[in-house]
Amino acid sequence: MNFTVPTVADIADATLSQALQHRIDQKTKPLGSLGRLETLALRIGQILGSETPALHAPQMVVFAGDHGLAARGVSAFPSDVTWQMVENFLAGGAAVSVFARQHGLALTVVDCGVRHEFGPREAGAVQLLIRKIAPGTADASAGPAMTPVQCAQALANGAEIVKALPGNALLPGEMGIGNTSAASLLLARLGGLDIADCTGAGTGLDEPGIARKTTVLREVLLKHAEAKAPLDALAAFGGFEIATMVGAVLQAAAERRIILVDGFIASAAVLVASRLAPAVLQRCVFAHRSGERGHALMLATLQAEPLLDLGLRLGEGSGAALAWPLLESACRMLAEMASFESAGVSEKSA
Amino acid sequence: MNFTVPTVADIADATLSQALQHRIDQKTKPLGSLGRLETLALRIGQILGSETPALHAPQMVVFAGDHGLAARGVSAFPSDVTWQMVENFLAGGAAVSVFARQHGLALTVVDCGVRHEFGPREAGAVQLLIRKIAPGTADASAGPAMTPVQCAQALANGAEIVKALPGNALLPGEMGIGNTSAASLLLARLGGLDIADCTGAGTGLDEPGIARKTTVLREVLLKHAEAKAPLDALAAFGGFEIATMVGAVLQAAAERRIILVDGFIASAAVLVASRLAPAVLQRCVFAHRSGERGHALMLATLQAEPLLDLGLRLGEGSGAALAWPLLESACRMLAEMASFESAGVSEKSA
Repeated sequence: MNFTVPTVADIADATLSQALQHRIDQKTKPLGSLGRLETLALRIGQILGSETPALHAPQMVVFAGDHGLAARGVSAFPSDVTWQMVENFLAGGAAVSVFARQHGLALTVVDCGVRHEFGPREAGAVQLLIRKIAPGTADASAGPAMTPVQCAQALANGAEIVKALPGNALLPGEMGIGNTSAASLLLARLGGLDIADCTGAGTGLDEPGIARKTTVLREVLLKHAEAKAPLDALAAFGGFEIATMVGAVLQAAAERRIILVDGFIASAAVLVASRLAPAVLQRCVFAHRSGERGHALMLATLQAEPLLDLGLRLGEGSGAALAWPLLESACRMLAEMASFESAGVSEKSA
Repeated sequence: MNFTVPTVADIADATLSQALQHRIDQKTKPLGSLGRLETLALRIGQILGSETPALHAPQMVVFAGDHGLAARGVSAFPSDVTWQMVENFLAGGAAVSVFARQHGLALTVVDCGVRHEFGPREAGAVQLLIRKIAPGTADASAGPAMTPVQCAQALANGAEIVKALPGNALLPGEMGIGNTSAASLLLARLGGLDIADCTGAGTGLDEPGIARKTTVLREVLLKHAEAKAPLDALAAFGGFEIATMVGAVLQAAAERRIILVDGFIASAAVLVASRLAPAVLQRCVFAHRSGERGHALMLATLQAEPLLDLGLRLGEGSGAALAWPLLESACRMLAEMASFESAGVSEKSA
């Protein structure tokens, strides 16, 4: 493949971490009493390289693509829902549209490989980028979902998209009927896990439906038994939206942007990216524990502790959008809270 | 006591609940895929009596008071921190100040019984109300923390404060060195639980400190073995800020405001209020599971499932402020998300 993984440097800085921790500990509150918000502040400070990090121009980018495997009945919804939901993102009516608007997140939608021609659009509040590799991946149960060339192109597209966007935080979202299957396959292969533990209801399969999906996915894994390297697995299982997201995540990490990771699919992209460049994980904040079966295992594999646990299983980036204000709060704590000294508050006596 | 508990009517409305659930289910997302945000939307709709509830003028009210029991060494911080933190709230440097500002929550601080004279203040961004019953409660290990007359006055003060505030959501916060002790005592007595299970580190006691605190609290419970009715227990254990908060919660519930419940102390006030008027709980949204030992038991006693679980144990209302944007999101989901029909998105096929 002719995609060069960008250099993602180690950003662990013991001096900065100590300064951040000291700053947090001097705030007018009992030591450690803001719990996870304190570790979040530490993480953001480390990523942005500042004792008083400031978030600016956060970018929600929703990567969309279709999956050939959907023809095998692995989803409760028809593939047409992918393009219909892209229209819904553009019109402002989807969950991620609503929550992005609430929190002032810029929203970009990328056609990475939707089985539909969107045609030219007027410039609107939501940007649509056409970076279509093909109208949907090939059926992964018959052969690789994409060729190595297609995979490399998708990765490069993702990197280019991020390069062109302002801001210091990326919130990757996704839409693609069938993409929990691709994510389950990536988790099983790269995590060395049984596919049954990685396979869930997706958009709403019942238990017999999940059993059928698991059977199909087990077959796909066997078919691609040699696809063990991260990019080989990615090409074998798909999809275009996940591959484009992997490129975006790598680029964002290389630029030292905060990556606010949504649910099961976004985590799968981060899993692939982190196998190519482990320091990617230093830039990640995990937004929530999804209700999708397999996400808890995915988070454990990534040694990630998410912020929210609300039983969300919608994707799109909706969970990342909901978690966003906590990142703002963490920065404001560092910047705006008084210290014991500045406020003239007595310290702990016992 | 001459405080009349306001009438808190049952608001369960099966027709409205069905309409809300139908509305939620028709939104462009897999059924149930917004998890707890959906049940939150249902709850808010029920409280405000609308299929498209709108939040307005949310009021963060921080109730402050001192505790005679603090002289027994139950806290890691000296009592002076109560008034010093009130000054910090007014100056805008405390956690709750910062998060309230972030989310556009009006902030009012009430001196319910702080051991300090604040004197007259210029009108500022933060309102200070003096509703001082006395400069701190009496030592509950020597006698009741307050007299029945004082307790009734605090309850009436809380109700009057809410009556005078605009908006349809109350976020009660608190400050009072020693008040985790009062909350632990109320939980043990009203919940019929062992005090050891209800007693935690508060502002930061170590394990020997917690053991000493538990011994003191066990003694206080024995001293007031007859204080079994909710208001008798409240008068016996204190404090003025909790009693004023109970009055505020009852009034907010009677007016059908949303009550966004913060951590251990605010939950104790809700526990007392709900024993006086059980339908109070229909108006409550629980913001978070506190890191304070005892809060999980408190939530179980109240059959409450909180939104966040971030290991917060600061109080002030800080956790309620952090959870606030989720309430906004729930309302926006109801008001702004497209339906399958309006967006032309295909429904589930399998």
